[in-house]
Amino acid sequence: MTLQPILIDGAWEQARAVDGSFYAMNPATKAALPFEYPVLGLADVERMIGAAQQAVTELRAISPEQIAQFLETFADNIEARKDELVEMAQQETALGKEPRLGSVELPRTSNQLRQAATAARDRSWCMATIDTASNIRAKFGPLGGPVVVFGPNNFPYAFNSAAGGDFAAAIAAGNPVIAKANTSHPQTTKLLAEAAFDAVQATGMPKAMVQLLYRTKPDVGLKLVSHPQIGATGFTGSKNAGLKLKAAADAGGKPIYLEMSSVNPIFVLPGVLAERSQALAEELVASCTLGTGQFCTNPGVVVLMDDAASQEFTQKLAEIMAAKPNGTLLGAGGPDGIAHALKVWQEHGAELVVGGKPVDGPGYSFSNTLMRVSGADFLANPEALQEEAFGVATLLIFAESAEQMRQIAGSIEGQLTGCLYTNSQGLDDEMYDLIEPVLRQRVGRLLNDKMPTGVAVVPSMNHGGPYPATGHPGFTAVGIPASMLRFAALHCYDNVRPHRLPAELQDKNPTGSMWRLIDQVWTQGDV
Amino acid sequence: MTLQPILIDGAWEQARAVDGSFYAMNPATKAALPFEYPVLGLADVERMIGAAQQAVTELRAISPEQIAQFLETFADNIEARKDELVEMAQQETALGKEPRLGSVELPRTSNQLRQAATAARDRSWCMATIDTASNIRAKFGPLGGPVVVFGPNNFPYAFNSAAGGDFAAAIAAGNPVIAKANTSHPQTTKLLAEAAFDAVQATGMPKAMVQLLYRTKPDVGLKLVSHPQIGATGFTGSKNAGLKLKAAADAGGKPIYLEMSSVNPIFVLPGVLAERSQALAEELVASCTLGTGQFCTNPGVVVLMDDAASQEFTQKLAEIMAAKPNGTLLGAGGPDGIAHALKVWQEHGAELVVGGKPVDGPGYSFSNTLMRVSGADFLANPEALQEEAFGVATLLIFAESAEQMRQIAGSIEGQLTGCLYTNSQGLDDEMYDLIEPVLRQRVGRLLNDKMPTGVAVVPSMNHGGPYPATGHPGFTAVGIPASMLRFAALHCYDNVRPHRLPAELQDKNPTGSMWRLIDQVWTQGDV
Repeated sequence: MTLQPILIDGAWEQARAVDGSFYAMNPATKAALPFEYPVLGLADVERMIGAAQQAVTELRAISPEQIAQFLETFADNIEARKDELVEMAQQETALGKEPRLGSVELPRTSNQLRQAATAARDRSWCMATIDTASNIRAKFGPLGGPVVVFGPNNFPYAFNSAAGGDFAAAIAAGNPVIAKANTSHPQTTKLLAEAAFDAVQATGMPKAMVQLLYRTKPDVGLKLVSHPQIGATGFTGSKNAGLKLKAAADAGGKPIYLEMSSVNPIFVLPGVLAERSQALAEELVASCTLGTGQFCTNPGVVVLMDDAASQEFTQKLAEIMAAKPNGTLLGAGGPDGIAHALKVWQEHGAELVVGGKPVDGPGYSFSNTLMRVSGADFLANPEALQEEAFGVATLLIFAESAEQMRQIAGSIEGQLTGCLYTNSQGLDDEMYDLIEPVLRQRVGRLLNDKMPTGVAVVPSMNHGGPYPATGHPGFTAVGIPASMLRFAALHCYDNVRPHRLPAELQDKNPTGSMWRLIDQVWTQGDV
Repeated sequence: MTLQPILIDGAWEQARAVDGSFYAMNPATKAALPFEYPVLGLADVERMIGAAQQAVTELRAISPEQIAQFLETFADNIEARKDELVEMAQQETALGKEPRLGSVELPRTSNQLRQAATAARDRSWCMATIDTASNIRAKFGPLGGPVVVFGPNNFPYAFNSAAGGDFAAAIAAGNPVIAKANTSHPQTTKLLAEAAFDAVQATGMPKAMVQLLYRTKPDVGLKLVSHPQIGATGFTGSKNAGLKLKAAADAGGKPIYLEMSSVNPIFVLPGVLAERSQALAEELVASCTLGTGQFCTNPGVVVLMDDAASQEFTQKLAEIMAAKPNGTLLGAGGPDGIAHALKVWQEHGAELVVGGKPVDGPGYSFSNTLMRVSGADFLANPEALQEEAFGVATLLIFAESAEQMRQIAGSIEGQLTGCLYTNSQGLDDEMYDLIEPVLRQRVGRLLNDKMPTGVAVVPSMNHGGPYPATGHPGFTAVGIPASMLRFAALHCYDNVRPHRLPAELQDKNPTGSMWRLIDQVWTQGDV
């Protein structure tokens, strides 16, 4: 059978350097899907990098307006091919067609592309800074090499390497992209890359603006992210794979932005249980089971005081969770990964409350699971008990005192999010003040009275956090334009003659509306 | 003899874990200076980290205004102790007392501290971003661990680990600092740390806000920069030491900002030589010899067309350089380092024009040196011919065509700066347009008609650049407030109750003047 073509240097071609092949699986049936994909060798990867370098050169003559048009055309193309994309993603991921794929994730994805287009056109993202007395001017610009994007398995559109948040941010900042498909949904990724490439052609972008590969042997992937001619890498996926790529990229001096793992602790303080235990139990289980628990922001750890109200709350959680249908996981690794994490938890003192077993059936599934552990046991082995179970599996930690709860917060590793639920009348405020400062510095996004699973695409979002949730505490993977700064270099112009300056740094505001910091004042005006 | 005390947890104390000792040298006499310093073992380093963590906790109750007062008091203290500081730095570095130390570098240093104070007080640096519809708010905040600063040998005040740019940026962003003295000027660093600690006490800062060590064994230094409880590291120094620290910090998931090496290429296009060859030769030699060539932005490579005007220009350069006195280098490693680089250049085709020998005498010195190489030879071994010679040693590259000059620009590694000198009437503009785009993406600061050795402390400055000049192309080590963002984490608040928000994110503008991005509009107003 013919292998699926890769997108390389402006053409859908058979791979030349093939180092094996693979199929994707339908997780709902465990059956192989019909398409066969090449595992790419180094020669084709290097050809992609060379073509991307040519795109970097051609991009110097491409305006922000043209990049915006490309992103918007791509968004239109995705919406036009919605039925096909939903059909394929459902086969490859077992995620629900409606509302999840068709009405939530797909519109979110095209919306992200349009937000990126708006940011590219607006130009404020580049933080143009002008000091008139010294005639020194600076802004962020493209990296000078392609951005390599590795997408995760859990969001086939919104974090897709050929259409998702990293892709949109990299393109809007003026870089070409080399997309590495997640191997659990390669055909969805191919459809998206087709839609992207159609937009490349329709809007006169450099032909290697978007390229696609499906898989490489590990050593070739390490060469890719550390290659002297790439700009940076965006990776969303497992800590294991992320850390290997990070080591290679770091050694090559190449920026890599990783979103790796997070257990998103939720602190439920006593006063809120007194107020609305039942509603909160329902809210928590709804968040835990969203996407069969396979969200980066899934609540993996819940911290409670060890008292009667918490025992009752646990009982409610267990009942609601047991009554929920067990979802289908994204792949064969799902049940094994959850079982492994539960085993690690149990070895360090955790006990099963409900669930805990793989589910027999046509698809990959695991029973909705709750476990519990004492605060003392958690503090004895905080790292093992923060092992991520990527699915519906949450660990309840019972603290014996407010001070122990603070210590638990202090043993939390870097996470994407941390939540505090408290009494609406202020009864928990003293405990909040004890715990919040400790938690604050360990999480990217701190929430009150809200589950972490919703990630709004707004400028103030931080979908990031301290290591090991990500590789750098200063950057976010979601939220435009902030996410674009990951894929930009700071370009200073010192005494450069006026007509040679980029438009964003000339005296006259190039759009009449972009924000610039001129002599320490943010303004939309001219110099 | 008693070892010099370290500053640890709010006290000047004898080191407890001593792993050897060392003396500094007077580079003008090669004589050891009278003070003996401890090489610190791991136990004291860990004690410092623990104390700094306590300072992190105490800093939560310290206002930006107090931090600003600390920085200003410290600046005052430095100026009050000017005579003592100039005397000591001159002994330890052989840099001139006037104007260099007393009237240039010292005021620059106190000015940087005052700029950092202004930025801390102003608060605009934290990029407060508020989206009212989603009630999500974000800003940059401190890292949750101390910043470790390694200062270089060439600026005993302005980049000093206990007073320089990294120190000022880290403190202004709200972090405590662990300063690691450069071992070539430990007593100057101790005096600065005394002035800092006096300010700590006078302004009620946490007692471990500033701590000082002089040296560790290499493995202890690697443990320090990768320690789970530190926030980040700022390093200015050699590529060799920087890359070792980077590998350790990267493996520990800790941000490290490095300013390592740069040869700062200068492209002299034909039309400017026709206009002002003599003046340019004088300007170039003045820049090359500043600080005996030991500036990060020293012009190490000059690219010219291989024509009669360039030969004549070379002759002028050689005459001016030979007529200049040979300066004193910062230490014993100076002459050896230059000789090594010259040997590498010669092995790859470069020829001596003038200089090229160590200078006998009481101090460490090397003759002012020019070498030359063909464009073809440079392109055959670009990496070897970009070996940094830290001193007055510049390599002239003779290109045989405009296209070869473009290729040379394309073989330049990541650098802090790149300059283009061109004809004032536009005669070189075609060549400029050929070379600039290639050079632009390889340098942090691009200059026209100006030598790179002046580094203005303004918001638009980029004292940074692509690897291996630094470790990340998006950050600058000079220029406030941008340099502060290296030492900050992005803190998002999602649905957090109004009274629990930090002042910078509450509806009311806390200063009445800080800039915030509210619903995508930069404003000094309230929500």
